[in-house]
Amino acid sequence: MTARPQTLAEKILSRRSGHAVYAGELAVVEVDQVMIVDSIAQSVIAVLKDLEATPKYPHKVSFVIDHVAPASSVSVAQAQKEAREYAAAHGCRLFDVGRGICHQVLIEERLAQPGWIVLGSDSHSTTYGAVAAFGTGMGATDIALAAASGRTWLKVPESVKVFLSGDLRPGVSAKDVALEMIRMLGADGATYQSIEIHAGDRFSRGERMTLANLCVEAGAKAGLVVPGGEVLHAYGYDFPEWVYPDPGARYLREVHIDLGTLAPRMSAPSEVDNVHDVSELRGLRVDQVFIGTCTNGRLEDLHAAARVLRGRRVAAHTRLLIIPASSEVMEAAMQDGTLLTLLQAGAVLGTPGCGPCMGRHQGVLAPGEVCVSTSNRNFIGRMGAADARIYLASPAVAAATAAMGAIALPSDLEEAPHA
Amino acid sequence: MTARPQTLAEKILSRRSGHAVYAGELAVVEVDQVMIVDSIAQSVIAVLKDLEATPKYPHKVSFVIDHVAPASSVSVAQAQKEAREYAAAHGCRLFDVGRGICHQVLIEERLAQPGWIVLGSDSHSTTYGAVAAFGTGMGATDIALAAASGRTWLKVPESVKVFLSGDLRPGVSAKDVALEMIRMLGADGATYQSIEIHAGDRFSRGERMTLANLCVEAGAKAGLVVPGGEVLHAYGYDFPEWVYPDPGARYLREVHIDLGTLAPRMSAPSEVDNVHDVSELRGLRVDQVFIGTCTNGRLEDLHAAARVLRGRRVAAHTRLLIIPASSEVMEAAMQDGTLLTLLQAGAVLGTPGCGPCMGRHQGVLAPGEVCVSTSNRNFIGRMGAADARIYLASPAVAAATAAMGAIALPSDLEEAPHA
Repeated sequence: MTARPQTLAEKILSRRSGHAVYAGELAVVEVDQVMIVDSIAQSVIAVLKDLEATPKYPHKVSFVIDHVAPASSVSVAQAQKEAREYAAAHGCRLFDVGRGICHQVLIEERLAQPGWIVLGSDSHSTTYGAVAAFGTGMGATDIALAAASGRTWLKVPESVKVFLSGDLRPGVSAKDVALEMIRMLGADGATYQSIEIHAGDRFSRGERMTLANLCVEAGAKAGLVVPGGEVLHAYGYDFPEWVYPDPGARYLREVHIDLGTLAPRMSAPSEVDNVHDVSELRGLRVDQVFIGTCTNGRLEDLHAAARVLRGRRVAAHTRLLIIPASSEVMEAAMQDGTLLTLLQAGAVLGTPGCGPCMGRHQGVLAPGEVCVSTSNRNFIGRMGAADARIYLASPAVAAATAAMGAIALPSDLEEAPHA
Repeated sequence: MTARPQTLAEKILSRRSGHAVYAGELAVVEVDQVMIVDSIAQSVIAVLKDLEATPKYPHKVSFVIDHVAPASSVSVAQAQKEAREYAAAHGCRLFDVGRGICHQVLIEERLAQPGWIVLGSDSHSTTYGAVAAFGTGMGATDIALAAASGRTWLKVPESVKVFLSGDLRPGVSAKDVALEMIRMLGADGATYQSIEIHAGDRFSRGERMTLANLCVEAGAKAGLVVPGGEVLHAYGYDFPEWVYPDPGARYLREVHIDLGTLAPRMSAPSEVDNVHDVSELRGLRVDQVFIGTCTNGRLEDLHAAARVLRGRRVAAHTRLLIIPASSEVMEAAMQDGTLLTLLQAGAVLGTPGCGPCMGRHQGVLAPGEVCVSTSNRNFIGRMGAADARIYLASPAVAAATAAMGAIALPSDLEEAPHA
C-alpha cells in the first residue's frame, strides 16, 4: 500500500484512510472505537442532539463513568444519569461506576487492538498505544462527530523515535523511564507528534500503558509502543504484519535512553518535565501519597507497593490512598492478598476510578499540603489547593515515601526500623 | 446512692453527677469521651479558641475524619487539616481518613464503655447505648464546652421502655426490629427521652449498635440496650453491677415488640417512621443500593449481603455500593472472603466512612433516582436530589434488591434464575 517507508502512525492512519498518508497531510480515517468519559458526556450528547445525529456504529462507542465516581454531587450524578440513559437508548457500551478508569477498562475489554484508531474524550488516550493502537484525545465536538460519522479527520503527525537499550536496575520501573523520556523531550517537546517507542519488548502490557500514557505529557498526539517481545502473546492480541514501522521511515528526532543508567525519577512541582533523581528530593515531609490512576494503578503497581510495605506501617502523619485502576485489578489484588498487605500497612482503599487525580473528590489536597502521586500531572492546583505541591513517582517510590512520611527510596527503608 | 428506683439513664447520669438525679431535673455530669467529626471540627475549634480554652482531658477527646473522607474539595480538606493539626497540638486522639465511621471506631477502640457518658458532634451518638453508655449528640458549642471543662449539663430524660420477646424468624434482623420500633414510637414519639431496650440479650454488639443508633430517629436523647446475655463477654467489657435499671423504675411509656411476628421492614420516603413490610413495596425499580453506615456497615451486615449475593449478579441497571463502617471491618471482610464474594457479584467498594449517607460524596443521587439504603435517614434530599427517593432496609433486603434491580426479599431470589 505504501510507496515511501512509513512510521507506525503513518501506517495506521494510511490503513484506516484507505490510502498512503504521510506526516503533514490531512487524513480522513475510520475510527474503531470512540470513548466518552462521564465528565464530558453531557457535552458530547448535546452536540449529537444539536446535529440530530446518533452514533453510526453504537458498538464502537463506549461510555465510561470514572472521573468522579461514585458521584460527588447532584450535578455530577445527573451527568452520569444522562450518559447511562443515552448509552442504553442507543445501544452503546456503558462501563458504570466502579468498573474503572476508561483507558484501563478499554484495554481490559479488548476495545483497543493493534492497528486500531481509538479516540477518547480524555487527554491520556495515548495509552492505547501500549497495544499499538493509535489513541488520541479529542474535545466534545470532535468526539461527537466521530461517534455520529464513524470517522474523524486529523493531520498526520510527525514522529519522534525513542529507542530503549540496556536493562533496568532493580527498583527502577517503566514510570521512571517515562519520566526520563519527558525530561529529555520536554513538556512541549513532542507537540502534535507521535512518540514511537522502540525496543520496549521487555515491558509488560501494563508497563507499556505507563509509557504510552505519559507521551501526552510531552505534548504528543499519540504514543506508540512498537509491538515486540513475548509478553503480549498471553493476552491473545493479533498483531497484523503491517503494524510495524518501516525500516527507513522518517523521524523528526531520535532519542536514546539507556535503561541501565536510570535511577528512580520524580517530577517536582509544577511541570511534568521538572524531573529529578529521587535522591535529590529525599526527606521532604509528605502529607498524602496516592497510588493509582491510568498511569500506575494496575496489579503490578500494587504488587510493587506491597513489596515495599509488607510488614511496615504508613507514617502516622501521612495518608496513603490506594485506588485500583479497575474492578478487575481490585479483584485480582484482593484474591492474591496484595490489598490485605496494603491495608495492614495502613493504606486507605478507594473505589476504582480516577480518584483524586484531577482534584475533584476522594483525596483533594488542602492548602500547603505535599503529595507524592503515581499519576501523570503535577500542575498547580491539579489535585486541590493552588499551593499544594505534587511530586510524581513510581509506585515503589510512593510506597517507600508513605512508610517514611517523607520522600524516600525503597532502599532507605532498609536502614529504618521495621514494624 | 439512690433513694427511688431509677432507669438506666438516671443511674448513669446520677453516677456521673455524684448524686441521685431523676427525670426532669438538671444535672451537671462528668463526660468520659467527647467525639468530634470532621464536618463540625472547625466550628468546635473556633469556639474553643474564642474561649481561649483547650481540652481539659485531651485523652477524652477524639477527632474522627469520616463524614467526607477522603476529602472531596479544598474546603473539606482544609477543615480536616485543621482537625488533624489541632488534635496533634493538644494531644487528642485522631482517627484519620479511612479509619471509619466515628461511632464504629469509638466502639472498636473501647472509647465507649458501660456506664460512660459519651458526647458526639453527630446525631447518631445514641449508638454508644449498645454497650450501655449514655451517648448523645450535641452541637459545636456544647461539644466545645464539654471538651474544655470535661463536663456538660443536661436535663435528665424521661425513659420509654421497649421490651423484646420471642425469636426472630429467619431473614429478619435487628434493623427490622429497629424500624418496627420507630414505627411504633413515631418519628417524634420519644423526643428527648431515653429509649431503654430490655431483653435484647440475644443480639450481638453490632446488632445492639443498630438498635441504639436508630433510637434518635424517634427523637430520643439516648438509646440504651440494657446489658445482658453472653454475647458481649467475648469483647471483655466490664459491666459494673450498677449499670442496670432498677426494678420499679418509672417509665413514661412501655412498648412491647414480639420478634416472632416481624417480617422484613422498610422505611419508605420520606420519614423513617413510614414503615412497611417489604412485601408491600416489592417490585419498585431501584437505581442504587447502598450497604454501609453506622447503622448497618459492620462485618455481620456484609456477611448477610454476601449470603444473598453469593453466585449472583447485581442487576445491570442497578449500582451496588458497599462501604464498610471501618478499616477493621474492611480488613476482616477481606480476610474472610466476604468482599471478594461481593465484588464478584458486581458490587462497588468504597473507602470506610459515611459514604453517601448525607449526600455529600461517593454516590450522590441524581434527580428521580431510587435508592435502597441500609442507612438511617430517608429525608427529602438527604442523599442528593430533592426528588430522589430513599428506602431504608436491612442488608439482606438491600442485597436481594440489588440482585433483582427492584425492591425484593431474599426469598424472591429463589424463584429467580441463579447466575
